[in-house]
Amino acid sequence: MQAIKWNGQRLELLDQLQLPNQIEWVKCESVEDVAEAIEKMKVRGAPAIGATAAFGVSIGARAGQELQKSDFLSYIDGVCDRLARTRPTAVNLFWAIQRMRNLISQNTDLDVPELVDLIQREAQNIAYEDVEINKSIGRNGLPLIPHNARILTHCNTGSLATVDYGTALGVIRASHASGRQVSVYADETRPYLQGARLTAFELQQDQIPVTVITDSMAGHLMKEEQIDLVIVGADRITANGDTANKIGTYSLAVLAKHHGIPFYVAAPISTLDFALASGDQIEIEQRSPDEVAIIAGKRIVPEGVPALHPAFDVTPHDLITAIITEKGVILSPDTERMAILRKKG
Amino acid sequence: MQAIKWNGQRLELLDQLQLPNQIEWVKCESVEDVAEAIEKMKVRGAPAIGATAAFGVSIGARAGQELQKSDFLSYIDGVCDRLARTRPTAVNLFWAIQRMRNLISQNTDLDVPELVDLIQREAQNIAYEDVEINKSIGRNGLPLIPHNARILTHCNTGSLATVDYGTALGVIRASHASGRQVSVYADETRPYLQGARLTAFELQQDQIPVTVITDSMAGHLMKEEQIDLVIVGADRITANGDTANKIGTYSLAVLAKHHGIPFYVAAPISTLDFALASGDQIEIEQRSPDEVAIIAGKRIVPEGVPALHPAFDVTPHDLITAIITEKGVILSPDTERMAILRKKG
Repeated sequence: MQAIKWNGQRLELLDQLQLPNQIEWVKCESVEDVAEAIEKMKVRGAPAIGATAAFGVSIGARAGQELQKSDFLSYIDGVCDRLARTRPTAVNLFWAIQRMRNLISQNTDLDVPELVDLIQREAQNIAYEDVEINKSIGRNGLPLIPHNARILTHCNTGSLATVDYGTALGVIRASHASGRQVSVYADETRPYLQGARLTAFELQQDQIPVTVITDSMAGHLMKEEQIDLVIVGADRITANGDTANKIGTYSLAVLAKHHGIPFYVAAPISTLDFALASGDQIEIEQRSPDEVAIIAGKRIVPEGVPALHPAFDVTPHDLITAIITEKGVILSPDTERMAILRKKG
Repeated sequence: MQAIKWNGQRLELLDQLQLPNQIEWVKCESVEDVAEAIEKMKVRGAPAIGATAAFGVSIGARAGQELQKSDFLSYIDGVCDRLARTRPTAVNLFWAIQRMRNLISQNTDLDVPELVDLIQREAQNIAYEDVEINKSIGRNGLPLIPHNARILTHCNTGSLATVDYGTALGVIRASHASGRQVSVYADETRPYLQGARLTAFELQQDQIPVTVITDSMAGHLMKEEQIDLVIVGADRITANGDTANKIGTYSLAVLAKHHGIPFYVAAPISTLDFALASGDQIEIEQRSPDEVAIIAGKRIVPEGVPALHPAFDVTPHDLITAIITEKGVILSPDTERMAILRKKG
């Protein structure tokens, strides 16, 4: 299942707010369409957002192909700025946009039509590469997954969160494909319910056994010895291995530590942000409280009562057993060990 | 606000499944009406269930008042059995029914009409006493609550979970009334959302500042030093202080310990079950997975994917800073210290 379709001109996104009840594709024909799809979380998941933003730059480039070069360059700069203003926490967004900016600044000697072609190919490359990267993450994670492992995951990190295959779900897919007989507990992941709606949907399609639980049940299941390991994705990993991921991840890491259960993070190198020394420096997106207060169109919090909606939290590196990337696995991540990835990245 | 109305003949229950969107009263005119209201969680909260069951015995007694005494005694025994089969975890239900049974067995020399009167008075007494007990819990808990405390609570333990005032919310109410300027974070408490729907509603009515969070945000807020203490209710407390409470409570206790935050349990003596040595022996009610998979009439988990719904979890006594009862506060509860309450109870 792919959630991002690109025909060279038009981007179509599987609307993840409607899944699993409706399969609805959102057509993005302008930069603004793409930016809004990211903001409204019709597309979500750090790697998927990165690829989508790259396609956004590509759509923008094509729309500006009649401009003079100097106008084109400042225009495409504005396109990148707009796409970067969509969501603050996942670094893959900025990584993909920066990759496009670098490409442009290294090729300012080209004509505008040539530049547009180059931009389009680069966006397509980012998407192609993402799938290969995820498959490598899956292969690299495999040795960490025992036979018959009962795996807890949070949010959605699969085909729907990437271009295809997935990060944490990629490791689970690779384990399943290798005959390891794994089974999955999917945290429903309030408030957006990505686990209940998306992870359960993907795993069901792949016939990987999955059971949905509320986020509040994870500790109980660990205590009852029903969970062998936890694996999650990441939206940003800092130089010391601290990891921002969907709200609720940090609680799982503390619970895993309390129960002596391994806690793994699976993410591409593009999620690493060596510009930040530690997770304290990560900006946490605060989304609308209505996304907590209203479920399926029904208000569950009385009018006038405030709600909070930090979309992410930060898990300190000392709660992380290993970070699994396409360039290898870092056990007990810290600044020194993470530097190994920096060299490879 | 009272959720249980009794006019001496008919019981009316504020339907807690409809709150806060609709104020709807359920009329219970038969034992079966009462049993179903408990089963379907139209009334919930351990002390409220206890009082409701007592009124159920009272309704049953009145309906059987024309029976011969021996028939009446075996009939009322069946009434008690039916009410006891509604929910397995909260012990207050069994405590209230046992209190009615004891009253009957101690008064078999009375005529049936006199017995019916006695039963009716006893049910009313249980309800009256519950309010006084909660106020005592509130007073006893007061010294544990600092000025300006930011308090995290789970599920609903207020007027709607008791006959009035509440257990954990009773302590919060007492703190507020004493001018301590407390504020509350209410876990929404999936799957039934008692925190978002009921706790937020009650505290708003009392003008106690409350903010709703998803259950998955508690760890993040503790890490950000936004929470000074956790206080919850209980459905059953065993001889060693292990505490069964709404699913998600155990995770909060682990998180509180990790962050060095006090974790308090507030409950009446009727919640203590000295027949069980430890929490391992508590039966955990497994409710319908549909209560997780369907929110506000909308299915969030794909058809065919299983979900779990343990309604409670057990927090071991060593994660509990203190248990607050109407007979006093037990710090660092264990079998020895809990025995002090047994003598007082």
